[in-house]
Amino acid sequence: MIFCIDSSGRETLLGLSHDGLVYDTMLPDRDGLLSRFCFMLESVGAAQADIAAIAIGEGPGSFTGLRVGFAFAHGLARGLDIPLWPVSSFEVLAHNLLPSCNTVAVLVQARKERWFAQTFGAVVKEREILDAKELAQWLPKSSMICGPGCATLPDELKVQLEARIPEDSALHRPHAKVLIQLAQNRWQGRERLNISDVLPDYGLEFGAA
Amino acid sequence: MIFCIDSSGRETLLGLSHDGLVYDTMLPDRDGLLSRFCFMLESVGAAQADIAAIAIGEGPGSFTGLRVGFAFAHGLARGLDIPLWPVSSFEVLAHNLLPSCNTVAVLVQARKERWFAQTFGAVVKEREILDAKELAQWLPKSSMICGPGCATLPDELKVQLEARIPEDSALHRPHAKVLIQLAQNRWQGRERLNISDVLPDYGLEFGAA
Repeated sequence: MIFCIDSSGRETLLGLSHDGLVYDTMLPDRDGLLSRFCFMLESVGAAQADIAAIAIGEGPGSFTGLRVGFAFAHGLARGLDIPLWPVSSFEVLAHNLLPSCNTVAVLVQARKERWFAQTFGAVVKEREILDAKELAQWLPKSSMICGPGCATLPDELKVQLEARIPEDSALHRPHAKVLIQLAQNRWQGRERLNISDVLPDYGLEFGAA
Repeated sequence: MIFCIDSSGRETLLGLSHDGLVYDTMLPDRDGLLSRFCFMLESVGAAQADIAAIAIGEGPGSFTGLRVGFAFAHGLARGLDIPLWPVSSFEVLAHNLLPSCNTVAVLVQARKERWFAQTFGAVVKEREILDAKELAQWLPKSSMICGPGCATLPDELKVQLEARIPEDSALHRPHAKVLIQLAQNRWQGRERLNISDVLPDYGLEFGAA
């Protein structure tokens, strides 16, 4: 059983994969992590001793969110003596669209009307922090766009990009299934990371919230 | 062995009591909790499986600090399946002076040039949030004064209270020995609290940092 958490956004993803099923839930904030964790275990009828590893979205995103999420994951991974598997939160978001799109741009709100932006797939662009004007230039012409940052784009840009931003809100938030799958692909069977070396990626500047 | 943490202040207290000795350290912030935790265990030559309980300063104080500290303690207590023992951070501070003073007032900076204030000992006053002027009125005449909030008092008030505020900075910060002792007195041998019910006490309003 793999437990996963991504607290880089305004809402926090918690999930469990168990017997081929995935439990996936979004918390409105970072309070109540532990109660929701307990509730999830109860819901799937599992014991925490069955957790083999923790997959964690490392950011970038909310500074406080990442600190709280990592503190919980650090404590739990240490306490259970299980590995902690970090995955870029951007990569997790990109995989909402990557199966069906060549290039995906992921947007996450940063501070001061700027956005973290990174592309995945056919056209790979490293992460940058851009304002709305720069962003409009920077986005590869062919790319689809997802991520919680889409919701906060200026209206003018939103209209301009309308055809490339999926309407389904589920495509703009991280999913436990993806996070766990990416973490397993990257870390399963590999040498265990030192848990205290697994740290948040706050981005090039501190996040939004 | 008891592990303790108080992350309500600008600096974070981490400690361990082991074989009658107390390891006590202050972190400059809330990052690196896990590495310091690992370092402490190594320093005392103990295994984390030897930790019987976690004593935690529940606040009031820094909103973010408390959230990060509680997330770590929640994860660790769950992972190790050990009890979590909450103690008022104010009570811990008061005990720096209580052995030798009748009444102790504890001050912690709150927002907007106001202070959390509470007294312990002979004259007991419930916690309040006061500005400097109200504070000068509110303090029992006989009381000694401690806590990190002393350092941020306006100069005028500092001078006025000089004889009642100890110079030794060690008397204004929490100590592992006290936190662990108070937690043991209160919780040892009693029915275990549900870990997810042990939550921060943010105070009457959100804290300073």
